[in-house]
Amino acid sequence: MSLFRLDASILPATSSSRALGDIVEQEWTSAHPDSAVTRRDLAADPIPATAWQNAVTAGFTPEADQTDAQREAVALATTISDELVNADALLFTVPLYNYGVSQHFKTWFDLAYTNPRTSPTGTALQGKPATLVTVLGGNYDEGTPKEGWNHSTAWLRRVLQDVWGLDVRVVERQFTLVGVNPALDAFADVAADLKATAEENARTSGREIAALRTKQSAA
Amino acid sequence: MSLFRLDASILPATSSSRALGDIVEQEWTSAHPDSAVTRRDLAADPIPATAWQNAVTAGFTPEADQTDAQREAVALATTISDELVNADALLFTVPLYNYGVSQHFKTWFDLAYTNPRTSPTGTALQGKPATLVTVLGGNYDEGTPKEGWNHSTAWLRRVLQDVWGLDVRVVERQFTLVGVNPALDAFADVAADLKATAEENARTSGREIAALRTKQSAA
Repeated sequence: MSLFRLDASILPATSSSRALGDIVEQEWTSAHPDSAVTRRDLAADPIPATAWQNAVTAGFTPEADQTDAQREAVALATTISDELVNADALLFTVPLYNYGVSQHFKTWFDLAYTNPRTSPTGTALQGKPATLVTVLGGNYDEGTPKEGWNHSTAWLRRVLQDVWGLDVRVVERQFTLVGVNPALDAFADVAADLKATAEENARTSGREIAALRTKQSAA
Repeated sequence: MSLFRLDASILPATSSSRALGDIVEQEWTSAHPDSAVTRRDLAADPIPATAWQNAVTAGFTPEADQTDAQREAVALATTISDELVNADALLFTVPLYNYGVSQHFKTWFDLAYTNPRTSPTGTALQGKPATLVTVLGGNYDEGTPKEGWNHSTAWLRRVLQDVWGLDVRVVERQFTLVGVNPALDAFADVAADLKATAEENARTSGREIAALRTKQSAA
């Protein structure tokens, strides 16, 4: 048994998404104490900005004519795809950044998507249990001033669920900047409730992915 | 007078978005033959994957304690912000990639957004005329199988228009993979119409941004 965990927060020491991810991971490890956890920390070790382009153009280039950079990019795509394919369950912690998708996560996804097993036609991840933790500094609910400004979660669901076919549960915590940004102090109570709910959801989803056994398709 | 042009396509030689950008630029140059064009090619020269994180953490670090990497990131943020602030009009060509935002564009935006003039509280770009060219390989219209799968354009509009306050016109071309992907051959006629319309919109928007004069705010 093994869990793959990806973290995208650029501020690990104070990361709300990593803290929720820790809860999910604890539930997994408590159910499977001997399980390995494979980690991909996109803040400590971001995917190079040129990797995706090199992997894509390598696909149009006979192997003998590929540059070293193209070969390295294809090898990295294989490695990050291996990490997904070989795991029994997946955990992603990905904050909303600047109303959009984490640049580090998109860069990682684009590269993984070039590998045949995790490409548009790959089926290696179908049905694999996964938890997506996402956190939003503000509040984006209906009726709030920023309603509609979260352009990240829908895309994350799209690619994890609809494209890769993962069996995804989403743990979301809003208002993580309450207590950090004094302008939001009035929302302390609601933020505390949202935090408690997210922590409970993280526990539940950790137990769920730990309980599921999926046979990986031999892709 | 000067035009800032940013290109995000990773395949410059066959890029539909760059071709439309060329039309916009031609209209600009024809109206302002002596105008400079400042270029930022994110495929040829992508923003390093570590720059944003370093610029953000530099903001929490006294200048004397900053690392060289932090200083370089702040300097690059200043440069890319300068390019925007100093231009009289802006042109962005940004394809949809993997149902989401171009990784290169997001990485560039995040970094630019750390500079005070182009930050959440900066007002240096308000009212500046801009054209956003975006292209979609498939068709994402209402009623098509991929309705709702374009998670890029709404975020691009959000940050260019709502966050930075640019006076944005959007030139969009769908079905750019018709003629490339044989499975889409049946859509040749509709794709040709969409291409012609996009080219006409590119000409119009190029003329519009060329005609506008904006006084830059002294940010």
